Amino acid sequence: VRPSNPAELVADSRTSRRALARLLSLVEDRDATLPEIMARLVTCAGRAVVVGVTGPPGAGKSTTTSALVAAWRAAGRRVAVLAVDPSSPVTGGALLGDRIRMQAHALDPGVFIRSMASRGHLGGLSAAAPQAIRVLEAAGFDVVVVETVGVGQADVEVAAMADTTVVLVAPGMGDGVQAAKAGILEVGDVLVVNKADHDGARATLRDLRQMLGLGAPREPGAWRPVVVATVATTGDGVADLVEALDKHRDWLQTGEGAARRARRAQAEIQALALDLVRRLGPDEDGGSRLAALASDVAAGRLDPYTAAERLLDRP
Amino acid sequence: VRPSNPAELVADSRTSRRALARLLSLVEDRDATLPEIMARLVTCAGRAVVVGVTGPPGAGKSTTTSALVAAWRAAGRRVAVLAVDPSSPVTGGALLGDRIRMQAHALDPGVFIRSMASRGHLGGLSAAAPQAIRVLEAAGFDVVVVETVGVGQADVEVAAMADTTVVLVAPGMGDGVQAAKAGILEVGDVLVVNKADHDGARATLRDLRQMLGLGAPREPGAWRPVVVATVATTGDGVADLVEALDKHRDWLQTGEGAARRARRAQAEIQALALDLVRRLGPDEDGGSRLAALASDVAAGRLDPYTAAERLLDRP
Repeated sequence: VRPSNPAELVADSRTSRRALARLLSLVEDRDATLPEIMARLVTCAGRAVVVGVTGPPGAGKSTTTSALVAAWRAAGRRVAVLAVDPSSPVTGGALLGDRIRMQAHALDPGVFIRSMASRGHLGGLSAAAPQAIRVLEAAGFDVVVVETVGVGQADVEVAAMADTTVVLVAPGMGDGVQAAKAGILEVGDVLVVNKADHDGARATLRDLRQMLGLGAPREPGAWRPVVVATVATTGDGVADLVEALDKHRDWLQTGEGAARRARRAQAEIQALALDLVRRLGPDEDGGSRLAALASDVAAGRLDPYTAAERLLDRP
Repeated sequence: VRPSNPAELVADSRTSRRALARLLSLVEDRDATLPEIMARLVTCAGRAVVVGVTGPPGAGKSTTTSALVAAWRAAGRRVAVLAVDPSSPVTGGALLGDRIRMQAHALDPGVFIRSMASRGHLGGLSAAAPQAIRVLEAAGFDVVVVETVGVGQADVEVAAMADTTVVLVAPGMGDGVQAAKAGILEVGDVLVVNKADHDGARATLRDLRQMLGLGAPREPGAWRPVVVATVATTGDGVADLVEALDKHRDWLQTGEGAARRARRAQAEIQALALDLVRRLGPDEDGGSRLAALASDVAAGRLDPYTAAERLLDRP
């Protein structure tokens, strides 16, 4: 392991891909220097647009992301892609395999691609992903795409970290129903029926629009999810998707953008606070206090709830 | 749902099985009255011997527990059995099916049997099981058996809540090796080769004794795990098992018993503290503070680690 100087790494991350990669590894490994690193990134918060891309396996997430990256690059925007797998402690084969489709951008210095696994930490991803986003913002990217694997609750949590969430489905009612069951349609600001040249695409589009229409009435000024049809492999519809994303970005300026970022920060702060409490174990700072409280509880002098309250009280 | 008065329920739990069952439901459901209930049980801590029974499915945990219950009842001791399934949000079929074997004790007022599921709460079981034990201690049971399903880490955690842990295996090398891999042999104070009349029992006994011999050298005064052979269905060897448990109970008096209870209290306090932090969400007490911290983080005025520290600082 190379020695890491947080100050230097942060300073170098705008120009050195190696420094950037090292910073993201520190985030992923929950390194002890993270508090210092994050303190150095404070003022960079909110610089990039964070776009979440999710949907069931096979919907074409990587191909669509790749097409979006090409469109944004053509407009001169720097793009980072964070591929996150909440379901697996190490990034699974499927996600890594998909990375191959991103090779078109491998030599473009304006594009940075990174896979990130949860490493089995409880709440690890909900703490790590916002930090990775912050590192990429500070490194000067205009757009950060968070691509997730589309398999349930953890995925919804990750999607909640985005400013704009794109939910992809492929034709065939199964996907749509599954996505609705998993709750990922609800988090979609833009819904994409990819592989729109396949059989059943029209029915899937109709189903999605119907589902959206059946939802609870929206408040005035609320965002109305947009449904877009694409064929990511040929680029058909990608311009419509970019337009929908731009429209949503403009809408965020009405105030919802700040609200979403505050919600994201809430989840992050809570995850870090839980981490701090978890570290109040026998081998850490709070150890002696916890041990004293525990022997009082074990001896019948104190109840465990009062002990927990006292553990959280700072000395 | 019947109204629940914690004071009355606690007072009645020594004589009323209904009150006892209701208290355990409140523990399982993480009811808001738990702090008050636990405060009323403080002085009862440590009254019962807690015996953990674990091992792979099919090793004969319920049959062995049933035989132990019969032996303890013959000695005039009141026994509670807590059957815990850490792997499933609701108690699974296998565990409920096993309960049928306990029917011999169903009409005995000195025996109380209860299944408990983790209900999918993170850390739910590590908080709930010690509380259930405390409720049963306060209700006047002399022995509390915690029977778990024997499938990995969560199981080891539950076993750690016991004063004495019994690990069962059935003949056949596979079981022994799997148990060793899962780490459950290490937590066993008493190892039982059940179904000792089956083929391969002698080899399994030899393997277990060899594994124990290969372990790190023990400190003077440390407990040396005992290996016992039983045929729980006929009662063969059960007297040896009871003797081994009594021997371990006597050894606990040397000081290790208090240490184990303190460790158990540590895990419980930590789980409750995590729960308190989790409740510092938007809809709870700390909500406004978390929201204020989050908007500072989102606006680039504060780093998330400092925010987490401040969230834990009491106002």
